[in-house]
Amino acid sequence: MIMKEAVLQTLRQGDCISGETLAKVLGISRTAIWKCIRSLQREGYQIESFHGKGYRLIGRPDLLLPKEIKAGLRTNLLGQQIAYHQEVSSTQDAAKSLAAQGANEGTIVIAETQTAGRGRIGRDWASPPGGIYLSIILRPAINPSEAIRFPIIAGVAAAQAIEQLTELKPELKWPNDILIRGLKVGGILIDMSAETDRINYIIIGIGINVNTESLPHEIKGIVTSLKTECGKEVSRVQLAQDILVQLESLYQIFEVSGFETIRKRWKALSNTIGAWVSVRGERERLDGRAMDIDVDGALIVQKADGTLERVISGDILGVTGQ
Amino acid sequence: MIMKEAVLQTLRQGDCISGETLAKVLGISRTAIWKCIRSLQREGYQIESFHGKGYRLIGRPDLLLPKEIKAGLRTNLLGQQIAYHQEVSSTQDAAKSLAAQGANEGTIVIAETQTAGRGRIGRDWASPPGGIYLSIILRPAINPSEAIRFPIIAGVAAAQAIEQLTELKPELKWPNDILIRGLKVGGILIDMSAETDRINYIIIGIGINVNTESLPHEIKGIVTSLKTECGKEVSRVQLAQDILVQLESLYQIFEVSGFETIRKRWKALSNTIGAWVSVRGERERLDGRAMDIDVDGALIVQKADGTLERVISGDILGVTGQ
Repeated sequence: MIMKEAVLQTLRQGDCISGETLAKVLGISRTAIWKCIRSLQREGYQIESFHGKGYRLIGRPDLLLPKEIKAGLRTNLLGQQIAYHQEVSSTQDAAKSLAAQGANEGTIVIAETQTAGRGRIGRDWASPPGGIYLSIILRPAINPSEAIRFPIIAGVAAAQAIEQLTELKPELKWPNDILIRGLKVGGILIDMSAETDRINYIIIGIGINVNTESLPHEIKGIVTSLKTECGKEVSRVQLAQDILVQLESLYQIFEVSGFETIRKRWKALSNTIGAWVSVRGERERLDGRAMDIDVDGALIVQKADGTLERVISGDILGVTGQ
Repeated sequence: MIMKEAVLQTLRQGDCISGETLAKVLGISRTAIWKCIRSLQREGYQIESFHGKGYRLIGRPDLLLPKEIKAGLRTNLLGQQIAYHQEVSSTQDAAKSLAAQGANEGTIVIAETQTAGRGRIGRDWASPPGGIYLSIILRPAINPSEAIRFPIIAGVAAAQAIEQLTELKPELKWPNDILIRGLKVGGILIDMSAETDRINYIIIGIGINVNTESLPHEIKGIVTSLKTECGKEVSRVQLAQDILVQLESLYQIFEVSGFETIRKRWKALSNTIGAWVSVRGERERLDGRAMDIDVDGALIVQKADGTLERVISGDILGVTGQ
């Protein structure tokens, strides 16, 4: 297995390389090289063999395999440990379980599909193949009351990663949706385990409709995918890597400089601030103009009578113009 | 087993009752009655048998058995389901595990001893026999940021229960200690599992040195027990029941009327407010006068220059006079 990874590593450099050279460099027989190549091909790697010249890697499988995500991943913390599932009930629940068993900060759980994907407040999250279903374990040395900032941090990271890779213009809808042209392309979910004084762990869940085709009928017209918006497939491995890099960077900013920079970026990416909104909050429905998010990530709404209301959690039912 | 409970239930009424009457009332043979009595005696129930007159219950075992706690328990929610352990690693961890599996709100875990009892921030909590080690599962429909009020709620409940049963004057030390004559007699620990929008569960942990004798040497002079303070044994079953009743009552007040009443009671029971304190907070050490706790249960300290500082979590190292 290790030998196969070494062959793949060598082919990743992009050149055409002969079986003989590979065998010499890696110190194994040409037959062993040939077996590695066959095995990689079965995994979905497209390796061309030019008679007399050698092998060349011309395509990688569209799978979120740990070795793909780790190849060239420019992070120090996030994704250094990866739990990968073809199918899992929920990456969030799998990550919780790993975190409770003591998994390191930065460990991620990633899956091709989820059978019981969760959204906020116990809602379902459709998780067909082609999406990214990613959960990240963090252990910030902060007070539990600061945890409500993490949907904001993760939303900015995901939006920046999408923008960088696709040149689409994602928008953030309070509290945790990622939109393109007003349609939902992704969402954020935060779970935490805490004492009064400290956080044991936070799990950041990020779900993105990347090349997803088979979304449930009842959410058509509400959701979209990056493939639909771009008119072509988007590399899920690249996007997952970019999200990890962006999130690690924002997490460092948060730890060193606090929340203010991130709050400003969120506001710049937001479709909510400045708009007339109808919010179903914890206790009642509220209409007004979304003015700001505050230092905790709570939404500040100005009602028709001019008074300001602070909404810690809720759903925006309608955005009726800027 | 059910028959034994019925015999115990009948004897609890306090009268001397003949084996013949018991047999008739419960519809079983006198031999079966005799077996039940023997079995109860082996469990630690002191049942006297007066020849020709019958049986009388004159003493109960000093064990926190579910049937003892449930007998006459005046609650609707807390303690309706009880997980009892002679010995457990930590009632808090056992309760977490039950809560994650879907245990009902109000379920409690109680143990005679803990082998890995926890205090705040991963500290040890000495848990020899004779104490109460109690964890309570709640599922309040509140925002996670409100969870930091629960050490205050639980502290007031425990102090009121101790005062009612023993006529001692317990004091509360911010954030989570219960003191008598300045010595620690108990403490509160809160664990929670939450999303950004809602709480999955809160576990309230309450540890009280009741009849505890064998506390570790290194904490002598810092801690005390109710037995030491009263000069006699205190009924642990009665105290556990009283704590559940007080906590249920305060929990209802909190849900219906909010935190303000409880905050006032905490202040009245506090040894902290008004005193000069030295606090080791999240980031630095702070000296000043403890002025108040705010709506979130955070400590408000006035520094020598008159400015106010808000401490969400920390330890009070010294209280230097009122």
